[in-house]
Amino acid sequence: MPELSIQEIAEICKGEITGDKNLTVYCALGLDGSVEGSVTFAGDKKSLETLKETKASAAIVPAGTVGDFPCALISAENPRVSFVLVAQKLAPAIPRPAAGVHPTAYVAEDAEIAEGVSIGPKAVIESGAKVGTNTIINAGCYIGQGTTIGSDCMLYPNVTVYYGCTLGNKIVIHSGAVIGADGFGFQWDGKEHLKIPQVGNVVIKDNVEIGANATIDRARFGTTLIGEGCKFDNLTHVAHNCNIGENCVFAGLVGISGSVTTGHNVVVGGQVGFADHITIGSNCHFYAKSGVTGDVPDGSIYAGQPAKDIRTALKEYHNMRSIGDIKKKIKEIEKKLEQE
Amino acid sequence: MPELSIQEIAEICKGEITGDKNLTVYCALGLDGSVEGSVTFAGDKKSLETLKETKASAAIVPAGTVGDFPCALISAENPRVSFVLVAQKLAPAIPRPAAGVHPTAYVAEDAEIAEGVSIGPKAVIESGAKVGTNTIINAGCYIGQGTTIGSDCMLYPNVTVYYGCTLGNKIVIHSGAVIGADGFGFQWDGKEHLKIPQVGNVVIKDNVEIGANATIDRARFGTTLIGEGCKFDNLTHVAHNCNIGENCVFAGLVGISGSVTTGHNVVVGGQVGFADHITIGSNCHFYAKSGVTGDVPDGSIYAGQPAKDIRTALKEYHNMRSIGDIKKKIKEIEKKLEQE
Amino acid sequence: MPELSIQEIAEICKGEITGDKNLTVYCALGLDGSVEGSVTFAGDKKSLETLKETKASAAIVPAGTVGDFPCALISAENPRVSFVLVAQKLAPAIPRPAAGVHPTAYVAEDAEIAEGVSIGPKAVIESGAKVGTNTIINAGCYIGQGTTIGSDCMLYPNVTVYYGCTLGNKIVIHSGAVIGADGFGFQWDGKEHLKIPQVGNVVIKDNVEIGANATIDRARFGTTLIGEGCKFDNLTHVAHNCNIGENCVFAGLVGISGSVTTGHNVVVGGQVGFADHITIGSNCHFYAKSGVTGDVPDGSIYAGQPAKDIRTALKEYHNMRSIGDIKKKIKEIEKKLEQE
Repeated sequence: MPELSIQEIAEICKGEITGDKNLTVYCALGLDGSVEGSVTFAGDKKSLETLKETKASAAIVPAGTVGDFPCALISAENPRVSFVLVAQKLAPAIPRPAAGVHPTAYVAEDAEIAEGVSIGPKAVIESGAKVGTNTIINAGCYIGQGTTIGSDCMLYPNVTVYYGCTLGNKIVIHSGAVIGADGFGFQWDGKEHLKIPQVGNVVIKDNVEIGANATIDRARFGTTLIGEGCKFDNLTHVAHNCNIGENCVFAGLVGISGSVTTGHNVVVGGQVGFADHITIGSNCHFYAKSGVTGDVPDGSIYAGQPAKDIRTALKEYHNMRSIGDIKKKIKEIEKKLEQE
Repeated sequence: MPELSIQEIAEICKGEITGDKNLTVYCALGLDGSVEGSVTFAGDKKSLETLKETKASAAIVPAGTVGDFPCALISAENPRVSFVLVAQKLAPAIPRPAAGVHPTAYVAEDAEIAEGVSIGPKAVIESGAKVGTNTIINAGCYIGQGTTIGSDCMLYPNVTVYYGCTLGNKIVIHSGAVIGADGFGFQWDGKEHLKIPQVGNVVIKDNVEIGANATIDRARFGTTLIGEGCKFDNLTHVAHNCNIGENCVFAGLVGISGSVTTGHNVVVGGQVGFADHITIGSNCHFYAKSGVTGDVPDGSIYAGQPAKDIRTALKEYHNMRSIGDIKKKIKEIEKKLEQE
Repeated sequence: MPELSIQEIAEICKGEITGDKNLTVYCALGLDGSVEGSVTFAGDKKSLETLKETKASAAIVPAGTVGDFPCALISAENPRVSFVLVAQKLAPAIPRPAAGVHPTAYVAEDAEIAEGVSIGPKAVIESGAKVGTNTIINAGCYIGQGTTIGSDCMLYPNVTVYYGCTLGNKIVIHSGAVIGADGFGFQWDGKEHLKIPQVGNVVIKDNVEIGANATIDRARFGTTLIGEGCKFDNLTHVAHNCNIGENCVFAGLVGISGSVTTGHNVVVGGQVGFADHITIGSNCHFYAKSGVTGDVPDGSIYAGQPAKDIRTALKEYHNMRSIGDIKKKIKEIEKKLEQE
């Protein structure tokens, strides 16, 4: 079990300690669930009030916090961020297959497996695939022909990565995700839908996390590109030839049609859909269930179906709800006119 | 092949037989597809009319049914429910792997496998996992470290259950479902999305059924809890820290954001989305494609995006469709005013 | 690597060559990415203008095209269709497991495996299953008891097909797709949701393609039927007892409820939902995110939630956006009336 001294926590927080300087904590817990031996955090007035009743042994709080608290305090510029850094250190190790190739895995003779790699039971690594240092390929995963996976990645059980794809470092992929399936491209010839060969691939940059049962399709030509630091929730779908910028976040069940380009730091609510061949600026935010049908400029906040600027969307929604009043007014006017 | 005598059916129905008391039936079929040797049911007047032309050998009907029917009748208080109980008895056995551990499965030495368990080809049971009596783990399933699965469960092929989860008894999980993947939690530090460790687990109570490619995420802290008797359709998503009451039903492609709490007997149509940290009362019903953005009291029927009481939603929809009329009226008023 | 002479391309196009008749090309690329040694296509005036700057060695163009181009031309009645046929010939071979059964696969003794079949590592073929000539079953796939798969099919890794299903010829199924899971059927008995046995199966006709993590459920009784030439994108869901006509196309995250019947050539945008027990005509088109709640006649174009004829939907949307104007007009009228 991991543990941290309050001194170590203060180092992570770049802050100062108030109270017992010899404490050790064993877990990081939210304010409502905190127990003895845990460190928690309180970032605002309301939380600080709650903190006065805490059972936690220590708390990360804003610099300058004063008052009577039943636990040690560690100051931090941003308690929420510092708490996550501390929680990362205190998280129990995630179970992983033993180092090396499990005897029940199948690894092609010419696959290149780096030092420190773990490959779990029943995993399949095809010919020409490369797996980088310390990467973990859990049970039942499939890595296609010639696909390259970087270092320090974690593929949970039963992930599928098709042939010819390139994944960077520190990538996390959850179970059931499928990387590199054919883009959805057909040409109607008057009698049948001809298959348009999808001869491109998928490239995923460093620090990306992909949720359970998410899908990212290979390009028709060229590459479907996922920028560094993007996070995809479960059951999200990225179609062929998309080019997703850095540090974008997509909530569950989002669908991105073919050849969509996005800037960086785009945040997308659940069940949003993007039409194909559109361009989304950086720092955009989309409310859940939006239907995005055209280009969106940098810094936009959009909502609705079709999606539009949130202020317009709210105004239209407000207007829509005022129709009852409008009807009443018209009746009043009509009465007046009749009375004249 | 299973079979039932009409006497056995009458016992299940707690009802009485009219007609041939020596019948045996071999399958339970709907009215429109019924054949000789089958039992069917007719619960209302229209169905009873159709029943007069049936080829079925027997039918379950409301108590007190009289008339001229070409088949034997068994009375039941609730023919629909009784028919399902009969259909359960007459359903052909679902194919299952042979009892014991298939020689191509991998079961960790310290996993505990109870009596009567079947583990299919290529399945993987990790260290410390426990599988209860008569449970069936089909081919390619993955059961993570320390996960416990109760008795009489059915995991179809290629199900993934992560480490540290607890599943009750009589649970059915369909292929591709993923239980216990990380909740979707990140903290932006100004440069990148820091991973918030998801150190909780998933607990699923008895009699739950989970559809193909559905996902239920592990909690950040504590437990994502699925209450007894819940049913999840394919491609549904339950985020971290949700607490779902008993006997709730979720249709396909529903997304439930983090920390949603529901009461019991909630019924949710397809593609509905729930915002995070909201509380849904018991006995609520949500129309398909609703977007639920706030708390919902017990017994509500909601529709729309944002979701609201169905009566309000219908009124607003009706109002919206009357805008054409409103425009006409305004034109008439303007004309009148001009004429004055 | 495949290659085609310009003569062979002209044969496919049933067209004529202008320029170098001794050319050989090695790949088919879009106009924007074309390189030396590639063939591209230009179907309209704008593309032909772009073509004047191309690096491609050859281009497929409409019959009668004249002008000064830096590449050879091949005329075609429908350049887009001809280009796809050429691209199919030039596509690099998709990696596949070696012919025969991989030593790490499990094939039941009484399964029937035809000539030329490839079965990849860790695949599982259960008792009584049949796999037709030249079909490829990739790593980790599961084929259930008694299921029949036709000839020339391609199942990518980790596909699951339940017992008792029938798949035709030339079918492509992408990773994570689940065919034949139980339909979502329960009967509330006042205390619990009784499981309605799903004793039917799934039948998929020739030339169907099914995307990654899509799900097609088995019927309650009888068959869930997918017509010839249908194409399903990733994460689509077809519920029990649906009967889908020929050559229908479903974009990502579409949900089709139980017992929906469709005609032929239906085209459905992303995230559309269909209510249960409705009938959709042939040649219908549904805009993305539509919610289809009732029967739809042949040749309809629908949009919205609830979905309606696109002209009505657009009119209503236009009306909705005019409420601001309506309010202004009413204020003007009220002013006038006050002034009188």
